[in-house]
Amino acid sequence: MSQDVPAAPEVSPGGSPRHFGDRLAEAVARRESQIVLGLDPDPARLWPGAYDAARDGGVPDDLPDDVLPPATPTLAAFRARELAGLAVADHCERVIAAAGPACVAVKPQLACFERLGQAGWAALESVVVHAREHGLLVLLDGKRGDVPVTAAVYGQVLATSTATPEGDVAGLAGDMFTVNPMLGRDALAPLVEAGRATGAAPFLLVRTSNPGATDVLDLPLQGGGAVWEALARIADELGVAGPESGLKDVGAVAGATVPEHLARMRELMPATPFLLPGVGAQGGDVATLGPAFAAGRAGGLVTSSRGIVNAYEAAGGDPADAARAEAERLREVAWALA
Amino acid sequence: MSQDVPAAPEVSPGGSPRHFGDRLAEAVARRESQIVLGLDPDPARLWPGAYDAARDGGVPDDLPDDVLPPATPTLAAFRARELAGLAVADHCERVIAAAGPACVAVKPQLACFERLGQAGWAALESVVVHAREHGLLVLLDGKRGDVPVTAAVYGQVLATSTATPEGDVAGLAGDMFTVNPMLGRDALAPLVEAGRATGAAPFLLVRTSNPGATDVLDLPLQGGGAVWEALARIADELGVAGPESGLKDVGAVAGATVPEHLARMRELMPATPFLLPGVGAQGGDVATLGPAFAAGRAGGLVTSSRGIVNAYEAAGGDPADAARAEAERLREVAWALA
Repeated sequence: MSQDVPAAPEVSPGGSPRHFGDRLAEAVARRESQIVLGLDPDPARLWPGAYDAARDGGVPDDLPDDVLPPATPTLAAFRARELAGLAVADHCERVIAAAGPACVAVKPQLACFERLGQAGWAALESVVVHAREHGLLVLLDGKRGDVPVTAAVYGQVLATSTATPEGDVAGLAGDMFTVNPMLGRDALAPLVEAGRATGAAPFLLVRTSNPGATDVLDLPLQGGGAVWEALARIADELGVAGPESGLKDVGAVAGATVPEHLARMRELMPATPFLLPGVGAQGGDVATLGPAFAAGRAGGLVTSSRGIVNAYEAAGGDPADAARAEAERLREVAWALA
Repeated sequence: MSQDVPAAPEVSPGGSPRHFGDRLAEAVARRESQIVLGLDPDPARLWPGAYDAARDGGVPDDLPDDVLPPATPTLAAFRARELAGLAVADHCERVIAAAGPACVAVKPQLACFERLGQAGWAALESVVVHAREHGLLVLLDGKRGDVPVTAAVYGQVLATSTATPEGDVAGLAGDMFTVNPMLGRDALAPLVEAGRATGAAPFLLVRTSNPGATDVLDLPLQGGGAVWEALARIADELGVAGPESGLKDVGAVAGATVPEHLARMRELMPATPFLLPGVGAQGGDVATLGPAFAAGRAGGLVTSSRGIVNAYEAAGGDPADAARAEAERLREVAWALA
């Protein structure tokens, strides 16, 4: 499988970015993979050796008090956070190097970086750059959503940039980013626009796979259907299909807890790329993914996080070897289905 | 009005944190204010002079390439972002110094900091510390929400801390934080627990005030009521009332676009603290806030961001004087209502 896909958004000679759906379809075809590598680093459970480089001189062990950031007012607090940030970055780099070749994208879980404050955000930024260098698309998993004026700011964070008197400041420039659609169409519009401006795409939460999804998302509506089906219609309506792939530039997070869900989702969103969370890592139920691929191989992206990263805990041996093997196994299973 | 309220979560002699509802009621009473100062800094529209200190030696103007962070690979990009981050922090410090005395809390809008990457997160951290020094509670406005395992991580980001081999790393340690409840009870539980562990509280989005709220939140349910009323019931159910104040430790973001909404919200959530966005800044409709205060003065927190920070653009003169006057005006109007 080839890995030479340029991952950063491409701009056509005319100046407008290439359509997200076409970019995604091409990336999936070239890499022969629909696997999205989830990165949810826990600083207390990184691959062995992650702290070695950082401890070995990566963080100063003496600093005058007046240069310590206000959030870490003691040297011990400062060092703990900086070391954890560097260790998280090192861990993610090694995970990407090992499992990345079998994947089409990485999915950093923003919460896991934010918990280390500015040191964690620095690690997140380095992971994004590193993933691109490996030819991977970047899916920023933050499930953001806010009223329109703030949604526009999240567009800057996730896809575009921010004007300042000293020049534009780039955001994370993701290729995909997860979005909570509860606040409605006007709150989604700025995120759709931000994606379109760079050839990226928001992925709207339509149905999540946690048990609590029944509390709100499954509530039956007076006009028929459940809340999640109303969200599916919004996702379908907001996307525009790519001229080559036919895939839309607004995706959906499609957690299927019963097989019927996925078929109904594909019915409501015939050309929407699906992010399929929590499926496949356990090896079971892969056959239920079929409806996702009715929109083509890039119609279903299969995420796995701990299943790949922690494969060595069950398999034994080198973490990188186990991650590589598990990612490749998932890649083959999914590819055979589509 | 007194400003000597300790803002950081207090721990009782028995070791458990003081109940959020009681902390909030006391803070509102001592400061004689229900005003929440929104901080939504736009690096292109800060108070005059915000960039002066940063330009005057705050950021190195020469650096070897190999120490530049990967997200800002050129010196110009690095400097633009660092300067904007320092300017945002300076702006927010001055806003807090001017308007803070008339307020009970600050509400940094996380998106506005995140758009400057790690430099913005550093500014956010300095704002949180600065607000505490001014005796203000901190309401982190990020509208986070995710499946249970990730919601627990957001609890670390917003309220508690993260274990690492080098020691615990503190999160932002907010007193309040906004949460999107769409994913249901099991996804909310870790955030409620994180709040309870530190005497803080999640504020659930129940009904937002943007026009698009009709798309999902207002959809009528088969069993009667709208989606937002189902969310209100969840918010009511998850909160526990404080022994002194009777106020619950789970709040609600209660955007009222028609006066009937607020009365119905209070009916469904009799003891829930409300965050009332977008009301009062324009000076109109304050009379409609009445039902919020049926739960006591601390039952309704009135947010204003641009109305205070940009008051000088209409009033003329010094930005700090105009912000101080507008915050005090709002404080008096709200206090007279309750």
